[in-house]
Amino acid sequence: MRTAFYPGTFDPVTYGHLDLIERALRLFDRVIVAVGTGRDKEPMLTVEERLVLVREAVRDLDGVRVISFDGLLVDAVRENGAVAVIRGLREISDFEYEFQMALMNRRLASEIETVFLMPNERYTYLNSTIVKEVARLGGDLTGLVPETVLTALKRRFGAG
Amino acid sequence: MRTAFYPGTFDPVTYGHLDLIERALRLFDRVIVAVGTGRDKEPMLTVEERLVLVREAVRDLDGVRVISFDGLLVDAVRENGAVAVIRGLREISDFEYEFQMALMNRRLASEIETVFLMPNERYTYLNSTIVKEVARLGGDLTGLVPETVLTALKRRFGAG
Amino acid sequence: MRTAFYPGTFDPVTYGHLDLIERALRLFDRVIVAVGTGRDKEPMLTVEERLVLVREAVRDLDGVRVISFDGLLVDAVRENGAVAVIRGLREISDFEYEFQMALMNRRLASEIETVFLMPNERYTYLNSTIVKEVARLGGDLTGLVPETVLTALKRRFGAG
Amino acid sequence: MRTAFYPGTFDPVTYGHLDLIERALRLFDRVIVAVGTGRDKEPMLTVEERLVLVREAVRDLDGVRVISFDGLLVDAVRENGAVAVIRGLREISDFEYEFQMALMNRRLASEIETVFLMPNERYTYLNSTIVKEVARLGGDLTGLVPETVLTALKRRFGAG
Amino acid sequence: MRTAFYPGTFDPVTYGHLDLIERALRLFDRVIVAVGTGRDKEPMLTVEERLVLVREAVRDLDGVRVISFDGLLVDAVRENGAVAVIRGLREISDFEYEFQMALMNRRLASEIETVFLMPNERYTYLNSTIVKEVARLGGDLTGLVPETVLTALKRRFGAG
Amino acid sequence: MRTAFYPGTFDPVTYGHLDLIERALRLFDRVIVAVGTGRDKEPMLTVEERLVLVREAVRDLDGVRVISFDGLLVDAVRENGAVAVIRGLREISDFEYEFQMALMNRRLASEIETVFLMPNERYTYLNSTIVKEVARLGGDLTGLVPETVLTALKRRFGAG
Repeated sequence: MRTAFYPGTFDPVTYGHLDLIERALRLFDRVIVAVGTGRDKEPMLTVEERLVLVREAVRDLDGVRVISFDGLLVDAVRENGAVAVIRGLREISDFEYEFQMALMNRRLASEIETVFLMPNERYTYLNSTIVKEVARLGGDLTGLVPETVLTALKRRFGAG
Repeated sequence: MRTAFYPGTFDPVTYGHLDLIERALRLFDRVIVAVGTGRDKEPMLTVEERLVLVREAVRDLDGVRVISFDGLLVDAVRENGAVAVIRGLREISDFEYEFQMALMNRRLASEIETVFLMPNERYTYLNSTIVKEVARLGGDLTGLVPETVLTALKRRFGAG
Repeated sequence: MRTAFYPGTFDPVTYGHLDLIERALRLFDRVIVAVGTGRDKEPMLTVEERLVLVREAVRDLDGVRVISFDGLLVDAVRENGAVAVIRGLREISDFEYEFQMALMNRRLASEIETVFLMPNERYTYLNSTIVKEVARLGGDLTGLVPETVLTALKRRFGAG
Repeated sequence: MRTAFYPGTFDPVTYGHLDLIERALRLFDRVIVAVGTGRDKEPMLTVEERLVLVREAVRDLDGVRVISFDGLLVDAVRENGAVAVIRGLREISDFEYEFQMALMNRRLASEIETVFLMPNERYTYLNSTIVKEVARLGGDLTGLVPETVLTALKRRFGAG
Repeated sequence: MRTAFYPGTFDPVTYGHLDLIERALRLFDRVIVAVGTGRDKEPMLTVEERLVLVREAVRDLDGVRVISFDGLLVDAVRENGAVAVIRGLREISDFEYEFQMALMNRRLASEIETVFLMPNERYTYLNSTIVKEVARLGGDLTGLVPETVLTALKRRFGAG
Repeated sequence: MRTAFYPGTFDPVTYGHLDLIERALRLFDRVIVAVGTGRDKEPMLTVEERLVLVREAVRDLDGVRVISFDGLLVDAVRENGAVAVIRGLREISDFEYEFQMALMNRRLASEIETVFLMPNERYTYLNSTIVKEVARLGGDLTGLVPETVLTALKRRFGAG
């Protein structure tokens, strides 16, 4: 049985994240979605709020576990017995940063492989930063984030 | 009659921006230069100061209107009856961010087209961030920004 | 009245090309689709076959004219009274080559502007080279190229 | 049991390829290395020679099968019951082409996932084209390709 | 006699920096390592601490002088009689920002050349930001930074 | 005394090449311009013609020697006692290929450093391939290549 580890800030979770989780589930027996505390990123939502939204979003998927994590990524991967870290490749700039982090992680834990998957091209332009900005300005996010996230964003920024 | 919308923070306006505005004027009947309030960017100049400098810079160009805007870009474009958003392509990293924003805007308002223009290669290295840094350190910006911007920068940072 | 010039080899025309033509029609009064002879590219289809397929594909679009052209791009643009060259931006590598050609063309004819448009993200992976390769290997191209192109490809490579 | 499919021309196989195969073996139960006939690439070695060299190179690895293939990639993947296509990410330009092919393959066979792995950074500069060029010019390739490949290259180009 | 100028924040100095300094020493008679005050970057270490660590790291290298600098880069280069600014190229995103700064510096001082060198590929993933993050989280940095830097990081973040 | 080695096909030499040679001369005592035979590139001009044009172009520069070379780059660099290989960085795609070749060369000869210089931004769009294409189609290349190259191109392609 092989487990994959999918770390992120998920501030908030989007359909782009869910697309990746479903793809990972075809390749691995279990996927652990790991919500980083993101101390240095000043997230909009608390880690508890983000955990609730991710858990709600993956409710119908078998083989997914949602946890929070803090500290060094490779330590969390090891503790959870995962063999791979899942990362989505959206664009070039992603790729570079991801590549660099993956090489550092490989140095810290050579037995863990970073696996890059391609999200559906529908989600090319979708990331949590843009989602928050559009939500703040009252733009419509239907079809980009789950219903419960829409509700959370409206509560935060007023009716969108 | 077709109107193009050229949004930016213009903190401050440079000859690179003016180059793009003149190019857009060859393609469209009217160009609206839209100075974003840039709340999240902590601009050096107030939106009023930036409006004054942009207006001064485009004084001799027919068909240009300078406005300020806040909120969702596509809403401002629609309210002003524009069919296109003008963006300058300077380099790869520009391109990626611009591409992503353009796709999100297309989703929010599919009738608005984002049009990418190439600035003169003389202005490849020119952006407002570098202009501010050079001004702060007392470097010479003659030929990169209009005279009135030079004066404003000197007033801000002391005689350069 | 402003005319845009959309040059290419169109070997064969795809829905990605048509998507760009429709976008250009929103911004310009007329679009000239110019099928290059492509001497140095050894196209699969003759220029006459390609012209027929493009004309068929744009039959229902008002304001489009399809021509063939040989020689220097800027000469053809000038002769046809166009103010802009339309190019699609698909990815980074596109961008670089396009950028370089656009700068050379600007040097040869400074009054002509190159305008970059973004195709629908559905067509990110679509180009004539991949279409030909998939056709050659018998893959299904329904939804990626017009019906008449499908027929032409099948005739060329046998029933797909 | 999950099978991964690693296609390539392998003209010739390098330590970069072997590095990827070993990484894939940690993630999947079986890896099928598929040597494409490469008709359109005019390979230096015949497909039979390439098969021999790849088989020799993976001799000590459990769970690897080496086959030749022709035709559409997704057909070969399906026939072999694989769930994933393995690709190495070396650099940006790789990434773009790979991304495009992966999206086309997804369209042709949505159940097959393309998985990108990072080779050891030691092999960043290593690809079959450079290997052939250095071999042709008599440069030393020790440590970059297996012993049997070294021998094959020397036979081809004379003692290096 | 030719002098090269190698500016940076060095917060902290890594083996990647040292690799570049040694490369520069093969090409120039003298290398001045210039520790920027980095006011706008909120460095972790004071400029004095960073100077001490860099001086310690280059102790055994002939022809290296370590200074601090503030203000416009080209002014510092001129004052020190250097003909070239040394920059390391790690990846694409580096390249773009470096390219832009180099062009601006050329405009400010056309007699100064920016020279890009490639670090050892072992250090592809190594930069001061990642070093600080790994140190903060208690990861092992042996082999990536000099011993004295390891000690300084441990003092800062607790035993790693 | 330090010598730099500037290899290329120079088919034909352009003002972009000359710009780089002049920059290299500020950093090194001697620059050897090495015209590769370019067997695999099917050059338009013979190596003798290219040597004549390069020699003519650098006639007024002190410290430049023009040679032809064949075989492995690092062998030619060593035989000529050079410490550095000069490469121009024009754009991203350049950068990647150059980076890869530079790493391979470093492996073959670790004492030779590859030095990347930035051409004047005026020459961003200038390379020998585009020059040949524009010449073939009768476009004006004044200001992009030396007079003698203009004459050679006109002789080849008819009066431009």
